[in-house]
Amino acid sequence: MGGTKKVIKLRTSSKEEIIDITDRVNEAIKGFGKKEGVCLLFVPHTTAAIFVNEGYDPSVKKDIGVTLGRLIPQNLDYSHLEGNSPAHIKSSIVGISLLVPVENGQIALGRWQSVFFAEFDGPRQREVWVWLL
Amino acid sequence: MGGTKKVIKLRTSSKEEIIDITDRVNEAIKGFGKKEGVCLLFVPHTTAAIFVNEGYDPSVKKDIGVTLGRLIPQNLDYSHLEGNSPAHIKSSIVGISLLVPVENGQIALGRWQSVFFAEFDGPRQREVWVWLL
Amino acid sequence: MGGTKKVIKLRTSSKEEIIDITDRVNEAIKGFGKKEGVCLLFVPHTTAAIFVNEGYDPSVKKDIGVTLGRLIPQNLDYSHLEGNSPAHIKSSIVGISLLVPVENGQIALGRWQSVFFAEFDGPRQREVWVWLL
Repeated sequence: MGGTKKVIKLRTSSKEEIIDITDRVNEAIKGFGKKEGVCLLFVPHTTAAIFVNEGYDPSVKKDIGVTLGRLIPQNLDYSHLEGNSPAHIKSSIVGISLLVPVENGQIALGRWQSVFFAEFDGPRQREVWVWLL
Repeated sequence: MGGTKKVIKLRTSSKEEIIDITDRVNEAIKGFGKKEGVCLLFVPHTTAAIFVNEGYDPSVKKDIGVTLGRLIPQNLDYSHLEGNSPAHIKSSIVGISLLVPVENGQIALGRWQSVFFAEFDGPRQREVWVWLL
Repeated sequence: MGGTKKVIKLRTSSKEEIIDITDRVNEAIKGFGKKEGVCLLFVPHTTAAIFVNEGYDPSVKKDIGVTLGRLIPQNLDYSHLEGNSPAHIKSSIVGISLLVPVENGQIALGRWQSVFFAEFDGPRQREVWVWLL
């Protein structure tokens, strides 16, 4: 482990939001003073998620959010009474833990890839925890 | 690697079941004699999964299970003749490998998070393999 | 980190295809000259994915592909104009980063498990990046 974790703090601004955090992750990695390794990104929340996909055309992340909403709609009969069951379910399916390689002090992604934080129950103050292994 | 893997053994008691295994994971981590690192949790099965979500209100895990069953119903026309295709598909979507940070000898989760084992084709004897990196 | 990454090159042959790459992963691991550890498999694409499930009966992977297509159909009204939004969404849900334990120079899987590369927008030249930690 490359020392203590770094924390990326995010303020989401709406109920649902998909945010490209690639630059924030690269900033956090600088803090470890190590150029090669593997970066663990961990979301300590139960109504948010993290994933990698296309960062070039913003309509891609829009389609991802809309499709998750179509599959797991808000207005079904859920047991959990806080009204955010769809957010918990999306978080469980998309995932909250992601491992990404680091080369030359930056996350080594494919040409079109970005790292995204998915807010499913905002607006809230959120964190992504970063470790460099 | 912190030595050989530890094995969490589980006996599931019904066809579908979502079990909070956070305490079992913390017990397993004690066996490595190392207080900091990253814990790899690996499910060596094809009809079960592992994920992190809210462990406080049991209705959350109920909604997750019910919604997966609505999306991937039992009674469609599947090719695989053993009758458990929905279990294989749920396992592939939710995932069988999970990386969680460890701090002070325990998995470092967010305030509301627990680690869950999801049984989709029980009852069976199951395992979760644990490594501390 | 066990040195530089190894690259598995794949040529997919149709629009959608799920390919068992377990043997290719084991070959790649040999190149690291290390028998124990954890293998990071990373797909540097935004319309493909990687997962672990049953490798014995090919009808299982067929059911997985068909079900993903039923959940995320081609003919909906997507914003992204390249016509491959379903592929981006499937990639985000199934995942592009996978961690698998290595024992005795091979990935340590359960009895029925194989590692699969999922092509959702082929045919294309694809890669899977392999690291041994």
